[in-house]
Amino acid sequence: MLRTHDLGSLRSEHIGQTVTLAGWVGRRRDHGGVAFVDLRDASGVAQVVVREEEVFHGLRNEYVLQVIGTVNKRPEGNENPALATGEIEVIAEKVVILNTSDPLPFQIDEHVEVGEEARLKHRYLDLRRPGPARNLRLRSEANRVARELLHQQGYVEIETPTLTRSTPEGARDFVVPARLAPGSWYALPQSPQLFKQLLQVGGFEKYYQIARCYRDEDFRADRQPEFTQLDIEASFVEQDDIIELGEALIKVLWQLIDVEVPTPIRRMTYWDAMAKYGSDKPDLRFGLELTELTEFFKDTNFGVFKAPYVGAVVMPGGASQPRRTLDAWQEWAKQRGAKGLAYVLYKEDGELAGPVAKNLTDTERAGLADAVGAKPGDCIFFAAGEASPSRALLGAARVEIGHRTGLIDPKDWAFVWIVDAPMFEPAAQATASGDVALGYSAWTAVHHAFTSPKPEFLDNFDENPDAALAYAYDIVCNGNEIGGGSIRIHQSDIQERVFKVMGISHEEAQEKFGFLLEGFKYGAPPHGGIALGWDRVVSLLAGVDSIRDVIAFPKSGGGFDPLTAAPAPITAQQRKEAGVDFKPESKPAPKAE
Amino acid sequence: MLRTHDLGSLRSEHIGQTVTLAGWVGRRRDHGGVAFVDLRDASGVAQVVVREEEVFHGLRNEYVLQVIGTVNKRPEGNENPALATGEIEVIAEKVVILNTSDPLPFQIDEHVEVGEEARLKHRYLDLRRPGPARNLRLRSEANRVARELLHQQGYVEIETPTLTRSTPEGARDFVVPARLAPGSWYALPQSPQLFKQLLQVGGFEKYYQIARCYRDEDFRADRQPEFTQLDIEASFVEQDDIIELGEALIKVLWQLIDVEVPTPIRRMTYWDAMAKYGSDKPDLRFGLELTELTEFFKDTNFGVFKAPYVGAVVMPGGASQPRRTLDAWQEWAKQRGAKGLAYVLYKEDGELAGPVAKNLTDTERAGLADAVGAKPGDCIFFAAGEASPSRALLGAARVEIGHRTGLIDPKDWAFVWIVDAPMFEPAAQATASGDVALGYSAWTAVHHAFTSPKPEFLDNFDENPDAALAYAYDIVCNGNEIGGGSIRIHQSDIQERVFKVMGISHEEAQEKFGFLLEGFKYGAPPHGGIALGWDRVVSLLAGVDSIRDVIAFPKSGGGFDPLTAAPAPITAQQRKEAGVDFKPESKPAPKAE
Repeated sequence: MLRTHDLGSLRSEHIGQTVTLAGWVGRRRDHGGVAFVDLRDASGVAQVVVREEEVFHGLRNEYVLQVIGTVNKRPEGNENPALATGEIEVIAEKVVILNTSDPLPFQIDEHVEVGEEARLKHRYLDLRRPGPARNLRLRSEANRVARELLHQQGYVEIETPTLTRSTPEGARDFVVPARLAPGSWYALPQSPQLFKQLLQVGGFEKYYQIARCYRDEDFRADRQPEFTQLDIEASFVEQDDIIELGEALIKVLWQLIDVEVPTPIRRMTYWDAMAKYGSDKPDLRFGLELTELTEFFKDTNFGVFKAPYVGAVVMPGGASQPRRTLDAWQEWAKQRGAKGLAYVLYKEDGELAGPVAKNLTDTERAGLADAVGAKPGDCIFFAAGEASPSRALLGAARVEIGHRTGLIDPKDWAFVWIVDAPMFEPAAQATASGDVALGYSAWTAVHHAFTSPKPEFLDNFDENPDAALAYAYDIVCNGNEIGGGSIRIHQSDIQERVFKVMGISHEEAQEKFGFLLEGFKYGAPPHGGIALGWDRVVSLLAGVDSIRDVIAFPKSGGGFDPLTAAPAPITAQQRKEAGVDFKPESKPAPKAE
Repeated sequence: MLRTHDLGSLRSEHIGQTVTLAGWVGRRRDHGGVAFVDLRDASGVAQVVVREEEVFHGLRNEYVLQVIGTVNKRPEGNENPALATGEIEVIAEKVVILNTSDPLPFQIDEHVEVGEEARLKHRYLDLRRPGPARNLRLRSEANRVARELLHQQGYVEIETPTLTRSTPEGARDFVVPARLAPGSWYALPQSPQLFKQLLQVGGFEKYYQIARCYRDEDFRADRQPEFTQLDIEASFVEQDDIIELGEALIKVLWQLIDVEVPTPIRRMTYWDAMAKYGSDKPDLRFGLELTELTEFFKDTNFGVFKAPYVGAVVMPGGASQPRRTLDAWQEWAKQRGAKGLAYVLYKEDGELAGPVAKNLTDTERAGLADAVGAKPGDCIFFAAGEASPSRALLGAARVEIGHRTGLIDPKDWAFVWIVDAPMFEPAAQATASGDVALGYSAWTAVHHAFTSPKPEFLDNFDENPDAALAYAYDIVCNGNEIGGGSIRIHQSDIQERVFKVMGISHEEAQEKFGFLLEGFKYGAPPHGGIALGWDRVVSLLAGVDSIRDVIAFPKSGGGFDPLTAAPAPITAQQRKEAGVDFKPESKPAPKAE
């Protein structure tokens, strides 16, 4: 080693010792013939005193030094209690410059604001800052405690292939040309789903993996083309077993940031969540439930409210919003594809104001505040139309209200399991939300095609796909879906019936998942599992908004890597070698005999 | 859970208890109205007694059962001491068939020999066999103990990107078209090399990752297009530090199979290994060193031995090999690209026999046995020509002799560090051995382009590339290279000089590794690391010959996956969407003003 001690480990017990240190030059203060250098390594910072002017004049920010010196007590009054090493300083006897540094594109400082593109282009400098370094160290710890727990519970870590066959799960596959089989391509897996199920067929019973997954999606904020999930699957389990394991994981993970998550975590049905919060990932750090008013307005004269669904959410204190804020809400709604956001101001004096109020009957005006639980001074926002988009709009308004009115305590943690989701959704709905609908029928799977119906729907899910509930569970934290799973189908005949609902023919199923269906023929055990979105989990633990902040070298928008400038053109030779343009020789059709 | 107890956990202490079990039907023996079923789960096997004929007649191999029953003591004399559960049996009260099984393509039995293609096609059945299951569980444990050690030593686990830019390291890259940037491609990394170095620039100091790597190589036996390495990098370290860490890892890994590896592990220079064993990965479980005879034969009349290098290896007891065996050795040598394998039989009576013997002078005949250390009854094999291929031939002959004469104890473990390898090798040599030579000069890097020269060659490695030694170390076990690493270059100017020796221009270096060279400008610390070939390490621990046996879903020859039949053709739509055929619009060249 080029050092005897880590900088951050130096304490008064080292006083008098000769030490060899190595690290980066941080701040430097010159005081008439003496320089005080903050030398930094991964463990921390210590103050180094350099007395030779010709030495310290040559030192620049982020130079890499090896320092041999003696640990001294800092002079009375010069201690720095903010620093773990603040009682001591090191009097340099020898300073070796291990490497120099050009002037930096930005300073290594917690408090400097730099654009993300610049930070990612020079990510190795960004990572020297305390925050980003802490985030990645926390991620490493998250891996560790999760693995430890899973090991204790008998789970086996198994790697699954990443050069494989398409595993259609609602997004596009990245594909890789196979040079040794020109014209053929591997697909990068969207998840280890099929393999983890086959490992259950293989008798492993308890599998896990911190797995890299790939989805070629159109740009969505905070999505990465490659991402990581903690992937888990087990045999002979029921929903409660996986939920219990998920809660144990959440407990040890949040203990990393000194938060005790009470368990069991509450459960809510999908339809309850949609009705009360307008979302399948409700933020339960605050109340403000939606109120359905369809019945309330069943005899209304107001055309807008003559709709299959009318609902409302209350903004406490919202009646005093100025006109331009109320106008801005309309814009906000339009950006979400709605026509606008109807509102009624419930004035402090009890009057109902705003453009909608005058369209209401006296009965409606008299009963409204009670119906929605509004108090004088509140604003009532409405949505009317089809239930699903209306609830979604109110759900989004609810979250926005939560933020604007300070109802959300950012230090709070609200977990909820969302259970009993529908098996299928209209394919058009999936496509509209940006997914690639699998299959060719009116229906596609909400979770994925391998999710079992709940036992009570096993017999009739195909006759009545609309009503069938999935044996699935999502775990939501503060409005973020951080994981999800299900009990899987383990019987070929049920799997084929599910494919049929989705419009996937027997032939197509065989072509795409034949190897899974083949495996199911030979004694597949009942099984189920879960996957936690690891980037999201760690970003919540780290208290950062973006998953990019917990990824060492993330891509920016559109899948571009500002550091390496990937993706990039390939050479004609690479293209030729990869067999990208291979055209199979077309054989003449055999003649009829 | 669908069970209360694991099958393998049942003991006499459970006698009298009612238990619920789940597992697969193994062997079944019917004895007049009673069936004895070996029920198997991941934990082991227990005997279940089914008395209802209509139930047990329906049970077939590998059916999945749930059994509710009572644990009984086996009748006197019926205990099975070979089985952990051999003292008890479970009297079934209720048998639920959770799933059926078609007749199997092969039996789930340790002793059945099945072709590898069939095993991999139905890998989920193969994995139910005790051996394959044990191998993957051992792999999981290897991951665990390695991570635990690295954590104790302060290493941080960091994931690096796999959709990235080409990291040329001696093989071809797999490439991935980027749909969102048509005409641009990602490359799958051959290793995390550049990223782990940048993490050192980023101040992490101690990094590790069990990393998936990708190399698009022509078919070589026992290579996989995707493979795994335990990847480690640290700052402010010297060669001895990384070697010490490597030894600590080997210690804990081999403890998994109850082997105490003595440390420190011996070290041998590359040139010593080549001279004495004809290999840079010598199998040191046995002696049989090569003898160089160039000097001995310097005045020879025998034309074949008038060569820049003559060497020999002795086969103990080999003089009695029949003529057809000696002929077979010639074939063996020709398959390795040699003209043949000259030999002299040192008969028990002291005579030298064989076609070469008569070409030797009396002096040579008199001194030969002593020179090579042969005893009466031995066979002396020779190689003559250029030193490098001649040594390689003798080295291969040595290993073959070791196997044929039983000199290798398969239970023995012989580790060695190979140090002081040359920096560069002639590019032609690298190409001949199947690598893709990086750069365009006569020289290419033996390790890789980022390996530092040893300090004493820092000044002149470019004037005399032939002589320069690398600051590199490989760890070899029983003739297998299981890992390798080096102290890296951390200064841009030295890196550019290395590129220059390899014929890589400043411009090309900028284009390919510009982001690394840019990073080196801002205070890169001295650093080094190692990578262990994880598939190989685990295969040695498991005592299996092929790395395929320690990979859950391996590819067979040519990168084909018998399970999923990947790679496979993609649809025209996928091809179009991926932007594979995107042709940038060519702009007319700007006119001269």
